[in-house]
Amino acid sequence: MSGSLVIAGLGPGAEALVTPQVTAALARATDIVGYIPYVARVAPRDGLTLHASDNRVELDRSRHALEMAAAGRHVVVVSSGDPGVFAMAAAVFEAVESGPPAWRDLHIEVLPGITAMLAAAARVGAPLGHDFCAINLSDNLKPWALIEKRLRLAAEADFAMAFYNPRSKARPDGFARVLEILNEACGDTRPMIFARAVSTPEQAIRIVPLPEARPEMADMRTMVLLGNSTTRLITRDGAPFVYTPRSVPMDATPE
Amino acid sequence: MSGSLVIAGLGPGAEALVTPQVTAALARATDIVGYIPYVARVAPRDGLTLHASDNRVELDRSRHALEMAAAGRHVVVVSSGDPGVFAMAAAVFEAVESGPPAWRDLHIEVLPGITAMLAAAARVGAPLGHDFCAINLSDNLKPWALIEKRLRLAAEADFAMAFYNPRSKARPDGFARVLEILNEACGDTRPMIFARAVSTPEQAIRIVPLPEARPEMADMRTMVLLGNSTTRLITRDGAPFVYTPRSVPMDATPE
Repeated sequence: MSGSLVIAGLGPGAEALVTPQVTAALARATDIVGYIPYVARVAPRDGLTLHASDNRVELDRSRHALEMAAAGRHVVVVSSGDPGVFAMAAAVFEAVESGPPAWRDLHIEVLPGITAMLAAAARVGAPLGHDFCAINLSDNLKPWALIEKRLRLAAEADFAMAFYNPRSKARPDGFARVLEILNEACGDTRPMIFARAVSTPEQAIRIVPLPEARPEMADMRTMVLLGNSTTRLITRDGAPFVYTPRSVPMDATPE
Repeated sequence: MSGSLVIAGLGPGAEALVTPQVTAALARATDIVGYIPYVARVAPRDGLTLHASDNRVELDRSRHALEMAAAGRHVVVVSSGDPGVFAMAAAVFEAVESGPPAWRDLHIEVLPGITAMLAAAARVGAPLGHDFCAINLSDNLKPWALIEKRLRLAAEADFAMAFYNPRSKARPDGFARVLEILNEACGDTRPMIFARAVSTPEQAIRIVPLPEARPEMADMRTMVLLGNSTTRLITRDGAPFVYTPRSVPMDATPE
């Protein structure tokens, strides 16, 4: 019996942002595996088993999914956003590499999704309209010093920046330090965007000049974006548009 | 009469990667505006006017779309991928900012899409599974020296990298220089992925160690990805999986 493993991105929350490819994969699945709130987004039906697990058990969850696929089940591992961006895809491949050789020959497929930074950016305009970087601010899986180093180099490169996992109950203080470093390295009033729960009924967007950003503006459901040195605000009735121009003047000289 | 302007991402090519939100916007439109091959992806119907224009006229195209929206039409500007990533959204907001004040009060909405780097990454595994950056390699709108500076800083930050517009007929030589800089700055055999026309019938994927990458492996339909220093290849029958682990050892010390 030939099973399969699909790692699917559910997008940021709204059903209208789930690709037809992912919807079709969910309809064919025998088993759904994932973090509790993401599995809760899949409608129960006859013949479908839902396996919801807690946060921070990504490798165990991946191995369970691979075992079921190896036993002939059609398993979909669900991630929010895009599975390849700070989500389940890397964890599954870590499990494949360290697991039984037979797992390498499974049919494994990653289905992309709308990742949070792109949904958040679209909501306010085009703040990532020029070169940019994406940094996971959690130090659960990397040294804090590496985060600081990347922030400084990203500012020096004048990248717009997208920050995943800015702050959680377990890590209440790191984001304050991130804001200090960014203010020091950027030294201007470029806009910072706090986009919470984008595309869901709880969506809340806040745009502030970097020096006015405060740690408590972010929580674990918040995506944080920062413009580069050229990012513009277009004022208007209601929320402004934020965009980063496509061009840099041709006579601009890098330091 | 109250018009509207939607800037919609069509994803990398396959219909199964177009979000239902974008499909609904196309169904409501009176006018579609965009680069010829993207407008060609929208099915003609009664009541819909298609306005296809050539490449490199993004600002003119944006102004035309805004004029029609201001005149009460329901206009959708189509981009491939995500409109906020090296595509039409920033151009539209540039036109809004420099245009008549009334354009600021138009109903303008950006609908995200699956951008090429995420479709390409999904196709091979999870090469962007850790911190990464996205760089447009075209120097049409920025000085070449800035591209070189960003490449070096991105390598120093140990970002995985996604390169848009690596090479075109008008810019045949820049990508050779990019490869030189990356080899010098990275100094290892991390994998480079050439993903051409992902999700279309012409899809072609090639994975090579960075020192073996050659300029002619890319053209204007190719998305190029580069792992970071920890990126792994999982060999197997058929194409290998490529992934970047989520973790960096906690005793790793940034230089």
